[in-house]
Amino acid sequence: MRVLGIDPGLTRCGVGVVDGTVGRPLTMVHVGVFRTPADLDTARRLHQLEQQVEASVLAHRPDVVAVERVFAQHNVRTVMGTAQASGIAMLVAARHGIPVHLHTPSEVKASVTGSGRADKAQVTQMVTRLLRLTEAPKPADAADALALAICHIWRGGAMNRLEAAVAAAAGTRRAPGAVGTR
Amino acid sequence: MRVLGIDPGLTRCGVGVVDGTVGRPLTMVHVGVFRTPADLDTARRLHQLEQQVEASVLAHRPDVVAVERVFAQHNVRTVMGTAQASGIAMLVAARHGIPVHLHTPSEVKASVTGSGRADKAQVTQMVTRLLRLTEAPKPADAADALALAICHIWRGGAMNRLEAAVAAAAGTRRAPGAVGTR
Repeated sequence: MRVLGIDPGLTRCGVGVVDGTVGRPLTMVHVGVFRTPADLDTARRLHQLEQQVEASVLAHRPDVVAVERVFAQHNVRTVMGTAQASGIAMLVAARHGIPVHLHTPSEVKASVTGSGRADKAQVTQMVTRLLRLTEAPKPADAADALALAICHIWRGGAMNRLEAAVAAAAGTRRAPGAVGTR
Repeated sequence: MRVLGIDPGLTRCGVGVVDGTVGRPLTMVHVGVFRTPADLDTARRLHQLEQQVEASVLAHRPDVVAVERVFAQHNVRTVMGTAQASGIAMLVAARHGIPVHLHTPSEVKASVTGSGRADKAQVTQMVTRLLRLTEAPKPADAADALALAICHIWRGGAMNRLEAAVAAAAGTRRAPGAVGTR
């Protein structure tokens, strides 16, 4: 499974692409940061971001897009831009028929480090180790996007198998008297 | 000037198109509401909304898109969807090179009724009168989108003349010793 992780933002939007399945070593395919100029109006920044996300989806053809869930409790001045940036990422995925999953920052931290309260340095350290990189991923911001992708592979792995089983069961003609599978 | 007003939302997104200039009677070109199914995931709802806004922009070719400014202080459960919906509207406008202007709800109410604290019924009543409609615009939700468009024609009129003057001045070769216009 290939997952494109997106840590949304207008000024900096972290992106990380990871290949892997549960129980197998993970492979980093790509890491980067999209930026849009702070002196541009929001509409044009969103348009630039859309084009960058679109290019990334076309280049890497992910099976899933994992986006960090944005909370309204955060910094009020930046939360609108972050919410809109996450909306753009979701839109581009949906346009290509790619499933989108949201994960909270604590889900991501817990998946990667074992603690939902891990700090940035711990997340980066574990991402570096899990992806068997010789040095910490650069730019540093994008480590969160890689952590999102890893989180989805591990958490989403179970969710995806469940969804696949449900879909398979729904598609199977039941033998008379068989116990329902849904 | 033709303005497409958008009152953003995922469940209901009001749209209204108004033609007019300051000091002249206004004309309603279109009014409507975009809806996306609440049982669909957010990514696909955003994609459906994008397609509806895109179709509206292509059908009406507005000179300006006026979007209601979303505040983070509002209902936390719905503000994310509203912010993302407004981002989609802004994105589509930017993609077509159409300027986007944001207006706060109180700016809109003040423009249309004279009071920033007017209620929904007063806004609808004034919109009906200003557009010389024989009955209140339907659906009722879309009256806000028409109010946004009217607000922009009146407020934006002055802003646009200023911008045009600045642009014209910047493009004019100055006579030696002429007083700067910027």
